[in-house]
Order: sequence, then C-alpha cells, then structure tokens
Amino acid sequence: MKVSVIGTTGYGGGELIRILHNHPVFQIHSVHSSRDEAAITDEFPHLAGIFEHSLKKIDPGTIAEEADLVFLATPSRISGELAKAFAGKDIQVIDLSGDLRLSSPEEYEKWYKHKPVEKSIINQAVYGLSEWNSEKIRSAKIIANPGCYPTAALLGLGPVAEAGLIDPAAGIIIDAKSGVSGAGKTLSRVSAFAEMNDNFRIYKVNEHQHIPEIEQQLKQWDAKTSPITFSTHLLPLTRGIMATMYVQLKRELKTSELLDLYQETYSRHHFVRVRKEGDFPAIKEVSGSNFCDIGLHADPRTGRLTIVSVIDNLMKGAAGQAVQNANLMNGLDEKEGLGFIPIYP
Amino acid sequence: MKVSVIGTTGYGGGELIRILHNHPVFQIHSVHSSRDEAAITDEFPHLAGIFEHSLKKIDPGTIAEEADLVFLATPSRISGELAKAFAGKDIQVIDLSGDLRLSSPEEYEKWYKHKPVEKSIINQAVYGLSEWNSEKIRSAKIIANPGCYPTAALLGLGPVAEAGLIDPAAGIIIDAKSGVSGAGKTLSRVSAFAEMNDNFRIYKVNEHQHIPEIEQQLKQWDAKTSPITFSTHLLPLTRGIMATMYVQLKRELKTSELLDLYQETYSRHHFVRVRKEGDFPAIKEVSGSNFCDIGLHADPRTGRLTIVSVIDNLMKGAAGQAVQNANLMNGLDEKEGLGFIPIYP
Amino acid sequence: MKVSVIGTTGYGGGELIRILHNHPVFQIHSVHSSRDEAAITDEFPHLAGIFEHSLKKIDPGTIAEEADLVFLATPSRISGELAKAFAGKDIQVIDLSGDLRLSSPEEYEKWYKHKPVEKSIINQAVYGLSEWNSEKIRSAKIIANPGCYPTAALLGLGPVAEAGLIDPAAGIIIDAKSGVSGAGKTLSRVSAFAEMNDNFRIYKVNEHQHIPEIEQQLKQWDAKTSPITFSTHLLPLTRGIMATMYVQLKRELKTSELLDLYQETYSRHHFVRVRKEGDFPAIKEVSGSNFCDIGLHADPRTGRLTIVSVIDNLMKGAAGQAVQNANLMNGLDEKEGLGFIPIYP
Amino acid sequence: MKVSVIGTTGYGGGELIRILHNHPVFQIHSVHSSRDEAAITDEFPHLAGIFEHSLKKIDPGTIAEEADLVFLATPSRISGELAKAFAGKDIQVIDLSGDLRLSSPEEYEKWYKHKPVEKSIINQAVYGLSEWNSEKIRSAKIIANPGCYPTAALLGLGPVAEAGLIDPAAGIIIDAKSGVSGAGKTLSRVSAFAEMNDNFRIYKVNEHQHIPEIEQQLKQWDAKTSPITFSTHLLPLTRGIMATMYVQLKRELKTSELLDLYQETYSRHHFVRVRKEGDFPAIKEVSGSNFCDIGLHADPRTGRLTIVSVIDNLMKGAAGQAVQNANLMNGLDEKEGLGFIPIYP
Repeated sequence: MKVSVIGTTGYGGGELIRILHNHPVFQIHSVHSSRDEAAITDEFPHLAGIFEHSLKKIDPGTIAEEADLVFLATPSRISGELAKAFAGKDIQVIDLSGDLRLSSPEEYEKWYKHKPVEKSIINQAVYGLSEWNSEKIRSAKIIANPGCYPTAALLGLGPVAEAGLIDPAAGIIIDAKSGVSGAGKTLSRVSAFAEMNDNFRIYKVNEHQHIPEIEQQLKQWDAKTSPITFSTHLLPLTRGIMATMYVQLKRELKTSELLDLYQETYSRHHFVRVRKEGDFPAIKEVSGSNFCDIGLHADPRTGRLTIVSVIDNLMKGAAGQAVQNANLMNGLDEKEGLGFIPIYP
Repeated sequence: MKVSVIGTTGYGGGELIRILHNHPVFQIHSVHSSRDEAAITDEFPHLAGIFEHSLKKIDPGTIAEEADLVFLATPSRISGELAKAFAGKDIQVIDLSGDLRLSSPEEYEKWYKHKPVEKSIINQAVYGLSEWNSEKIRSAKIIANPGCYPTAALLGLGPVAEAGLIDPAAGIIIDAKSGVSGAGKTLSRVSAFAEMNDNFRIYKVNEHQHIPEIEQQLKQWDAKTSPITFSTHLLPLTRGIMATMYVQLKRELKTSELLDLYQETYSRHHFVRVRKEGDFPAIKEVSGSNFCDIGLHADPRTGRLTIVSVIDNLMKGAAGQAVQNANLMNGLDEKEGLGFIPIYP
Repeated sequence: MKVSVIGTTGYGGGELIRILHNHPVFQIHSVHSSRDEAAITDEFPHLAGIFEHSLKKIDPGTIAEEADLVFLATPSRISGELAKAFAGKDIQVIDLSGDLRLSSPEEYEKWYKHKPVEKSIINQAVYGLSEWNSEKIRSAKIIANPGCYPTAALLGLGPVAEAGLIDPAAGIIIDAKSGVSGAGKTLSRVSAFAEMNDNFRIYKVNEHQHIPEIEQQLKQWDAKTSPITFSTHLLPLTRGIMATMYVQLKRELKTSELLDLYQETYSRHHFVRVRKEGDFPAIKEVSGSNFCDIGLHADPRTGRLTIVSVIDNLMKGAAGQAVQNANLMNGLDEKEGLGFIPIYP
Repeated sequence: MKVSVIGTTGYGGGELIRILHNHPVFQIHSVHSSRDEAAITDEFPHLAGIFEHSLKKIDPGTIAEEADLVFLATPSRISGELAKAFAGKDIQVIDLSGDLRLSSPEEYEKWYKHKPVEKSIINQAVYGLSEWNSEKIRSAKIIANPGCYPTAALLGLGPVAEAGLIDPAAGIIIDAKSGVSGAGKTLSRVSAFAEMNDNFRIYKVNEHQHIPEIEQQLKQWDAKTSPITFSTHLLPLTRGIMATMYVQLKRELKTSELLDLYQETYSRHHFVRVRKEGDFPAIKEVSGSNFCDIGLHADPRTGRLTIVSVIDNLMKGAAGQAVQNANLMNGLDEKEGLGFIPIYP
C-alpha cells in the first residue's frame, strides 16, 4: 500500500517516517512539504543513508491519484484545508491536527480561535482513539487522530468514565506534563534551550484547545460529565507526557478492584499496559514506543482516585497512533510495524 | 553571632554554608558531621579556597557552650535525638527535618513510621513558616523548619485558606513536582542519572509524610479543612518545586479579586511575589534565591481555582527559610544575608 | 537460531534484548543473570507485555547445549571466566567486555589491573570491529566486541591510519565525551542525577583501559603508530559518544581529498556515514541506531586534521555492533535486525 | 560609584545586574537597551521585586555625563560603535564584546568578517585578563573584556606558556565545550530545546573568532607560539565551559612539578584554584561564581601535558571578570562584590 505524508518536516512528520520506512505493508510513496524540492536530510540529517526522498510540493489531486492513504502532519488550519481537498477523493486520510476532532464547529471556533472546517467534512471524520473506537475506525475513510494530551488522559479515564463511576459533582482534574517536542518545531523563547533547561513551567491553565476534545469523548462515555479542569506544563525533556488525574468516584472502590476493571478493559489491547498495585509508570518506560502505561490509587482517606497515564507524545500521542489507525482501517493487525521496544535507558 | 551546622555534608547543609558564609551577622563557628575530621572539601570541592573548616564530631554539650544557634540539617530521627539533646541548653535550635513539625506524636508515628520525639520537646518547637508565623518565630527558641513541599503549598494556599474561602466538600488537590536534590544525597537507582535524565516519575501517591504537615497548618487557618490529595513527582532537574493546586471556592470570585487578596496578604513580605493576571511563575525564576512566586486562575467554567507556587527546594524550601527564621529569632531584618538574585538563565 | 544473553540486567543486556526480540533470524532462547529467577521486568519495567522471560542462572554447560550463540554482557572479569567456560564448547560467543580484546596479557594486566584470561583463549577471539575485520569475523567462533570509545575512535581514524598518512612524531590526541549510560548501572556519586545534571566532567586522563585497545588496532594499520593521548569526559545525557580527534598528516591534504578517501573506504559499509564538507555530526543524529557518523576538517593554518566521530554507546558501541558481528558470523546481511532509524528529536 | 549597563536584555547584561545590584561600591545608575522604555521584568521576570528599573534608550552623551563607568554588554559591531562614542568622554568603559580585543584590525576583519574599530580606539583598550594584566588594568580607562573560551584557555595555559615551556613544533590543541547560554539569546534551531537536549555538537572547527584572541595573548607570553587548533562544542547544559588542552613541553616535567608552578603562579589570585594531583575540576564546581578551576596531568608515556580549565561562561567568562576588572580600575579589592559561592548541587 502506498502512503504519502504531508507536513514531513515537523516532528510528527519525522516520526511518521521512522515508523513507515520499516512498515511491512505501507510503503512511503511520497513526502510533501510547503518547502518542496528540499532534500529531506536538510531538515533531518539523521535520515542520511536511510531515507533520502526529496520533498514534493503539496498537490492533493496528484497525491490522491498516486497514493492509497495520506497522513496530514500539518498544523491546524492547513490540515483542515487539505482534509477538504481530499474528502471527495479516493484516498484514506489520517489527520494529526485538531481540525476534524470536534463535532461542534462552534466549540472549535471558541477554543482554536479560527474558522472551523465545514460540518459536512467533520461528520465524515472518525475520532481515532484506537482502543475505544476500533469498530468505526476499521470502516472509516477519514480519521481525526487524537491530540497527545487527550490520548493520555482518555486512555487513563476511559474505564471508570465508561462504567459511569465518576461523580460529576466533584469534577475531573487533569494535571498534564509534556516534553518540549510537543510544542513543535517553531522557534520561541519559551522553548529555547537556555530558557527551558532545568526549568519547568505551566503554560495553559483552563484554556488549552484539548479541553473540548477530552470533554467530547468523556460525554460519549458518560453524558453527565461536568467540565474538566485541565492544566498543561512543559517538562525539561524531549518526549513524553504524564497525565496525573484526580476524580471522585460515586461509590468507594478499592485500588485492587479498579485495577481489575482496567486490566479487563485493556486485556485485549496490546498497547495499553496496566500496572500492578503500588506501581506507577514513568515517562521513560514508554519512550520511543506506542505504549500507554497506566497506574492508579484509590485513597480511602479522601475517596479520591488518582490515575497516572504516560505516553510518548510523538508516538502514541501522534504518529504511532496514526499508524495504528491506518492498520485498523486496512484490515491489518493493529500492531503491524509498531513493534518498537521503549528506548532504555 | 556564632552559629553551628550539624549534618553539613548533605545538600541542605551545603546550602546553609553558601548562605551563612557571607551573612553579615551570623558567623559559622563550627560544622559537624558524623564523618568527623574529614575535610569539607572532600564532600564539596566547590568550597575550596572559600570555606575549608574541617568537620567536627557531633557533641551537643560543646556546641551549646560555644555557639548561639545551631542548624540541624540532619535526617529525620537523628534530628529528633539532637533536638532533645539541645532542648534544655542555652542555644537556639533550627531543625530542618520533619521531627518537630507535627504536634501530634500519633500522626508522626503513622506517617513517618518510627517513634516520635517526646511531646514536651515538640511543644517547644515553633513551626517556621516565616510569612505566616513571624510573631511566634521571633520569640521562639526552637524552630521546626517546614518541609519543602509544604512551604510551596502553604504559601500558595494561605490567603484563600485563612480567609475561609475554600469549600471543604470539594477538597484540596496538590500536584507537586520537585527537582532531584529534594531526594537528598543517598544513592538510589531512581535518582541515578541514566534513570532520571529525560524522565519524569510520580513517587508518592497519597502517602507522603508532608501530608499531615500541610493539613495541620491548613486546619489552623480553617478548622473545617478536609483531608488533602497530595501527589509528588520527580522532575529531571536539580533544584526547584512547583505545586499546582486545585481548590473549589465557597463562592465565585474573579481571578483579579483573588490576586488582590494575595497581593494584599503578601504586600509586606519581600520573599513572596504574586504574579499579574495571566502570568504564572516558572521554576527557574526563583532558582538559587529565597523567593516563592505565586500565580493563579479562577475558572468561570468550573468554579475551580488553580494556584501555582514555585520555590527553590534548597532555599525557601530548606536552608533559605531556616536563615530567614534565624534572622527573625534574633531581631534582624528577615532579608539579612538572603539577598540572592535568582540565577538566570 | 537460538541465542542466549548473559548479564541481561545491565544496560548492554537490555539493549541486546531490544534488538534481538525483533530480529528475524535470532530468537532469544534464554536470558541469564547472577540474579536468577527474578522477573526481567523487575529490572526493566519497560519490557512489560513485550518480553517477560524470567532470568535463569548462569550454567555454561546447559547454555552451550541449548543455544547456538551466547552474548556475554557481563562485566570485565566475569566475562573472561565465562569465555573460558564456553571456549571448548559448540557455541558461538560474543563478549561485550574488554577481557578478550588485548592480544597481550601483560598489557591487559597493566591497564585493567587484574589477572588476564589465558593467551590460548584470547588467541581464539577475533576483534569485532565489523567494518574493518569482517573477513575474520565471518569465520570466527569467539568475538571480542570492541569497547564503545574505541569503536568511535577507530572508525574515525581508520582510513587515514590504514593509508599510512598519520605523522607518528606528532601523535594522536583523542578527546572523547560519553553519555552516562556508558558508566553502567552501578550506583555512584559521580553518576547520581543531582551531581551529573548540568555538569560535565573529565574522569580518566591518560589512564583509560581503552588506550591499549585503540593502540593495538592502530598499530595493525600502521606499525609506526606512537602512543596516543586519550581523555574521557562524562556528558549530562544518557546515550552517545563523540570522539574529537587531532592528528598531523605526513603531507598536506585538503578536506575534500580526505573526505573522498573516507567515502571510498566506507562506501560499502551501510553503518558508517561520512558527512559532506563543512558538516559535522551531532550525537543525537545516531541515537538509538547502529550508525557511526564522521566529519572532518584539515586546517591549512596548522596542517592538523580534526576528525569527529559519533555513535550511540549502547548500539554501535556495544549491543548493535555485537549483533552486527553475530550477523556476519552466521552468513547474514550485516544489517539484519538493525534497521533502527535514529530517534529524533 | 555610578555605573550604567548597555545591552541589558542579553544574558551577559542580566548577569551584570545580578552582580552589580548587590555590589557594595558600584551602584546601578541606569540600564539601557535598544528596546527602550520596556520594563526590565518583561525580559527578566526573575527580577520582579528586586530590580525594576525601566530600560532607557542608548544615549552615550547622557550616559557619560551621569555615570562613572559603563559596561557594554552589546553584540559585536554595536559595541565597537559605542566604544568609539565613549572613547573621548570622561567615563570608564568595559566592553564585553570582541570588538576591542585584537590589536590588529586586519586579524579582526579576517575572523569577525566585518569592518574593525579604528586602531586609535583599539590602542586605548587594555585586554582584561585580570590575573595576568592587572597592572595595566588598574590604570586603564577602556577594557576589552576577554571572551569566555579565551579566558578558560589562557588561564589554563598561562603558567607553562609564560615560562616558555611549550614546544612550538607540536602546537597547542584546545578542545573546548560550552553551555548553551554562551550562544546568546537569539533564537536558532541549533539552540532550541528539542534539538539541544540530550545532544552534543561541535560547531566551529578551526574558525572560531576566539582563535586570534588566544594566539595574541599566547604570543605575548611566548613569541614563538605556533597557530593553535581550536574546536568548540555545545553542551546540553546552561552555564559552564571546560577547555581540555593538549601541549607538548620542551622538556619532561612531572605532574607535581607543574602543579607547583601553577600553584605558585596563582597563589595570590583568589579566583583561580589549582587542584591537587589526580584531581580535575568539573563544570558545576564553579557554577554561578567567578572562579576558574584548573587541573593537569603530564603523561610520561607520550610527554604530553593535558590541562583542564573550567569557568562559568557568564561569570568569569563575561560579567564576573568585567566586574573584577572594574574593581581593579577603581582601586578596590578585586573580590569586591564577587563573593558568590558556586551553586551546588
């Protein structure tokens, strides 16, 4: 199967190449960037001798003719435009941006602060949270690949949310921390090394555009979900997200009972690993891989449940999940080409 | 005034030397360690040519005769023993450990998992949260210097807690993150460079011994405070703590009103800096100094207040606050010898 | 083909598992450690759900019967003992330690400061510098896998050394820098996070046991090689080595001529990538892969040649090269199972 | 004494404020930037509540009337222009850029690739290597403050160079490594966190503009000095420089003899600390302070001397040395206001 990648020079694009280049079924047919005709090794010297395609200009018509599937690793807004261009054509589309995730264009406009994609296009897009939406993904033509933070948060909350166990009165608090690659390749003072090294900062308090995305999915599990509190922080490391989440349960449950629920929910899902009681995942333990690791603790003193979920923001938080969805869409084992063992140490 | 330091070879002890060596009033009379007679530069080569006292053995009787004030930068349990030895003598004592902080010996035993100091000694100790307890500190002879996490958390919560604004039903959630120096000098796999670099981990969920300490002070402000949820994380950096805290208020208040309250509360307190609306502190902005920086945001969508508090765990979280208390105890300006400007970048 | 790994719980062992688990031909038959019967996920939680063999005790007799090839990822001294035990048996042996690398037992004793392996065993071992010794490696039964620093240094020096271009009068200076994983898993103050973060240190000046190994190979290329100057430094990062090397050439050559020589020498060697003029490799560009990248510059002002060589110390510097050699020994393409694309960013 | 700082918003400028704000004699009269009237806390939030001057526009006439001394922490070229403007006025000038360091305008033009300052101005500038040029500095009106790398290298080479011990035939090799703050505040891909974290790169091979500066001083010590080989690398840390240097001596000397020479040379110089035999300095041991630490080893095997010199690039490599020179120029103890103890850990 021939695949194309648009937006190849960003970190998500680079990660897609790392996965697709060795994928047994998908073959990279072409890579595209607004900076066409540049050698990809100008952007990514590490690909020398491995993958040396030159970047082509972005022409949806040609791409749709030549490839079977296109990954959009472009920024918000550009992705939306491209999705429109591809929507009517005979090609599968996986969009890594947020442009197709929200079913409500009003919500999109409110949080992303620009004009949304037409509802008719959005309606065609299936939300690509692989472990929870595989049925629809298998028959989808367009995938809205989830955001990095939402992936970590939703995989961590899913079992208790879907089981209707969360007390809406108390709300859900998500304290999220991400490595700097999540901020993308654009230069900024905040992400300059001398500013970020040995530093830790909070950067979006109650205003991150991932809030409506997380709430949308939570409401699908439990219509009574109340608005969430979501803080994002920048960690002085390159890859990785940890979401530490706090919920109140409707009734008291022991940690062991909850772990049983999680292990059952995820028993057939290779990429979600639930830890034993007393054990919590660290960011490094999934680095470079498509895994999401989860740990939790129910506190008898307060009745509150603390859930910890970690992913690699470029893998399960972006490119890894995108390929996982591409596998599902094409009748492959979801693990195909995703056998990466975490890099350790 | 002559001061002595016991437990000089730990990071807290080293930081005390950095402050006291240039203090205009306090003069380091002697430094002590269980590893007596070693040169301090074996432990701290950076002190060569600056401070080259040899370490002496720990003899409370002699120390009490020769010095006016002693800092205990020793681990829990050892500090307790030393506090007992010094309690009846004519010398001021500032204990950096947790051994004298909890008024209830039962609480101490439950959370620290070993035998507490006698109540008669504990009763003599004043909790050294400088900005909130300065009256008692000024006339104290023994100070229980607060823990690093509690300092960050309590300074951040104080104004709303004391004003009785926190809704006890919803509880208080503290998601705390610390640099690795907070774990002390003892070697462990978790704090080995190859394991901690580029990593982020949660390490104590609902079981940190700082929980009773934070609750004890919160209850002094507001007797109705419910049990807190407290998670601690290790950051891949050396110094610094950020506490991101989530509370529900009894009535709706705007961010600007709350900032007014905070700025008023801390207007005469040099070391606590309250940020403007929309601005949140980063860990680096207080590094190497005795400052605590606070930012906050009240979310109209959820009614929840997010408070962010940052300190340098070795300064305001330990040695800096200890010297600040020593200044207060001896009628000095609390800023004496603490004019460190944060190291930047 | 069945392979076994001894010394599985070290970083080299962990990296061997990462490679071998997905190798199309080699199948991990058993993993061994002195800590037998422990679950490997106690040591390596990142392997949960991927590789969950239990560690077996080290019994050379049984291993030699059951497996076709054994990797010794054990420390110096232990490796030597094991090599002896396996030497007479029907099993291929790849030793990642330094115990079999030096042809002179006296040199070994002088630099490693303990008793060497018998000459009869050493004589059977072939030095596993894949790109330069592939003939002998293909027919070898025992491989002395090169050290990390020597691999980077020798690949960088090989072309000019072999061509007899280095002026022995001026000597060779190797200024090497390594990430902390090269120091192994043993806890030490020097490699504690709080000591190593934001730090850079030199740790062996003119005394590293890799000196005789580098000189031994250099002399095979050019008998007139004079003693080298070799300094090793610890970088505040996890993986990677850069060797910056300084040699004087016998005659003046331009950078472009030398690059031609290097590109020619390495043209059929997939894993060594020679940079264009003016371009030098950075450590991250080979991270997680088996590549060695080389850049160089000949300075007309001084007549001196500066060569820069980078590898991932756990891959091309240890486990990656070990598997590359295992491929050669068994008639496979040397790239088999080593298609790792560098992790970027 | 009133001092002014121009170029306040760069890292050098920020460091000058950190030192001067608490200096017992120098008082910051005004701070200037091309971005005039901005609040300095916009650039440096860490200075809130400490130093809140607003930035003024750069008007040499006014500054010369109001202040006694001006620090130019401006980039190359701008500094040169300002030096000209101040040269005829009644004000001391300390320039932190390279514009006044080279006595030869042709050398400047060749290495800096732009038009040099007039010789008449350069002739007035005294090279501010405090420990070696204090006589001239004391009576100077204009100081060319040395570069960061040259400071580390020259302090490390001085004793053997001045004693005429270096064999010119073998040359001098300086392998230098610096933290990223040395690259300044300008955003660039190379110094973006996601690119520089966990990375190490070489960036100027035989072409750094510090080469003529180092050679100029070396020739003052020993006219026969041959051209040096100088490589610069970027370390994944914020502050610090280590220069590892390799020289051949004219005759064989033992490490202990050389250390005696170094200790004698620097015995009256507080800020240069010479290590004991077998001990080498690490970057962290001088961090945040004005110290330069030196270690060395003479190798009997090769006759080569390895010298290791570390400084904090913003302190002894820039602002610290600038204030040290300002002290000397004004008859103060050179240590005045520079009592910073290295930040540890």
